[in-house]
Amino acid sequence: MGAGPGDPELWTVRALKRVQEADLVLYDALVDAEALRQLTAAPCFCVGKRAGRASVKQDTINKLMIRAARQGKRVVRLKGGDPFVFGRGAEEALALAHAGIPFEVVPGVTTAVAAPEIAGIPVTHRGIASGFLVLAGQTGDALEGTLEAIRPHSVTLVSMMGLMHRGELATRLIAHGWSGETRAAIVCGASTADEWTWTGRLAEVESVAPPEGIPGVVVVGEVVQVRDALVRLKPDTTSDAAADEVKYGRS
Amino acid sequence: MGAGPGDPELWTVRALKRVQEADLVLYDALVDAEALRQLTAAPCFCVGKRAGRASVKQDTINKLMIRAARQGKRVVRLKGGDPFVFGRGAEEALALAHAGIPFEVVPGVTTAVAAPEIAGIPVTHRGIASGFLVLAGQTGDALEGTLEAIRPHSVTLVSMMGLMHRGELATRLIAHGWSGETRAAIVCGASTADEWTWTGRLAEVESVAPPEGIPGVVVVGEVVQVRDALVRLKPDTTSDAAADEVKYGRS
Repeated sequence: MGAGPGDPELWTVRALKRVQEADLVLYDALVDAEALRQLTAAPCFCVGKRAGRASVKQDTINKLMIRAARQGKRVVRLKGGDPFVFGRGAEEALALAHAGIPFEVVPGVTTAVAAPEIAGIPVTHRGIASGFLVLAGQTGDALEGTLEAIRPHSVTLVSMMGLMHRGELATRLIAHGWSGETRAAIVCGASTADEWTWTGRLAEVESVAPPEGIPGVVVVGEVVQVRDALVRLKPDTTSDAAADEVKYGRS
Repeated sequence: MGAGPGDPELWTVRALKRVQEADLVLYDALVDAEALRQLTAAPCFCVGKRAGRASVKQDTINKLMIRAARQGKRVVRLKGGDPFVFGRGAEEALALAHAGIPFEVVPGVTTAVAAPEIAGIPVTHRGIASGFLVLAGQTGDALEGTLEAIRPHSVTLVSMMGLMHRGELATRLIAHGWSGETRAAIVCGASTADEWTWTGRLAEVESVAPPEGIPGVVVVGEVVQVRDALVRLKPDTTSDAAADEVKYGRS
């Protein structure tokens, strides 16, 4: 099940129902644990990576789900964003199918689209970008292979979980022919109280210092102009006090 | 506001709230109008394309929103999927900002990810695809330009609104070096009663006959194997009778 980018109001209605009916919830670190516990009486266990602690191994998570299901429990496996976008959700679905456990997949609002959106950046925009490419936070050869495969400036790029490696991403993009002047953005903690957005140029991405410990996405492409236009039209929206007036997905 | 792929249970909690509080709802043809009217007492008008009828012009939609807002009405502009993925949502946001109308953007479950997902296909999967590219249903030079820019087999392709032009998409992909043997899928009406899924090979895409009048996405990439594996493990899920046992996002 997907929990969306952070704010529990961006859960789907079905996700809410399922967690209310659950006997056990296994959630990832990206999920708002406090909000979750207010929504369900079921025991909730974090199986994702948390600061300073390793995550539970994938195989252990699969076994936990299967064992609880065999005991007749309704198990919710809750992931940030959408479970089939870099969430290993399909691996877990396959493990359940192998074990003969009935299950359903509940899509969520993917952070790949929603994080830029909440910051006022559309991944597509008529006359600017007619497609978008979503990448995991790859590095080294994996990143090189993907970037080589894409002609510079052809689509909007969204790099998820790539905050730590944003310098490498920018350097390699520029080496592959992307202009250092290409508009870029970093959006952290979208839809949460920690929301933080920077916009600028691709060449500046490395030197930006986003807040630590908050997951974020890097967006590369001229669609970032749309946010700039929205902010220009409503300059006071850059302050928290004006958040009531023009809200990009926050309440 | 995004309404997700179809099933009202895949609306976000916030979308549900906003429509309940609304004074006026302007919705697109992809939205389930019957479900919508059960959720709100507000007048609901379809401004999207419907069979045999032209859609309301974008400029007229903007004017309708702005006029109603100036009368103090809370207006919901409801779009299928996510409003910032090929939904012209950002154009409407800009029109509102220009007019000085306060607004918020409510992300939705994007059909680009959810339609394949509901059919058991993850757009990313470890060892198979570490990125995905979402395209509008372009044709001609626009499609050619995008396909030229992407190295064959480098990422999963999801073509939205491309059902009518699926033959052109497949032919051009093969001309650009994609193997005709690449796994492909067509998913129509995901999460609705009209759900219909085909999987096969890229070279066969043109000759498939999806049901008429139901929007769908075309997926190209080896991630389609995941659905095949899920179906193999649960062969009875191909029949409706077994839908209760393994459900991919439907209830």
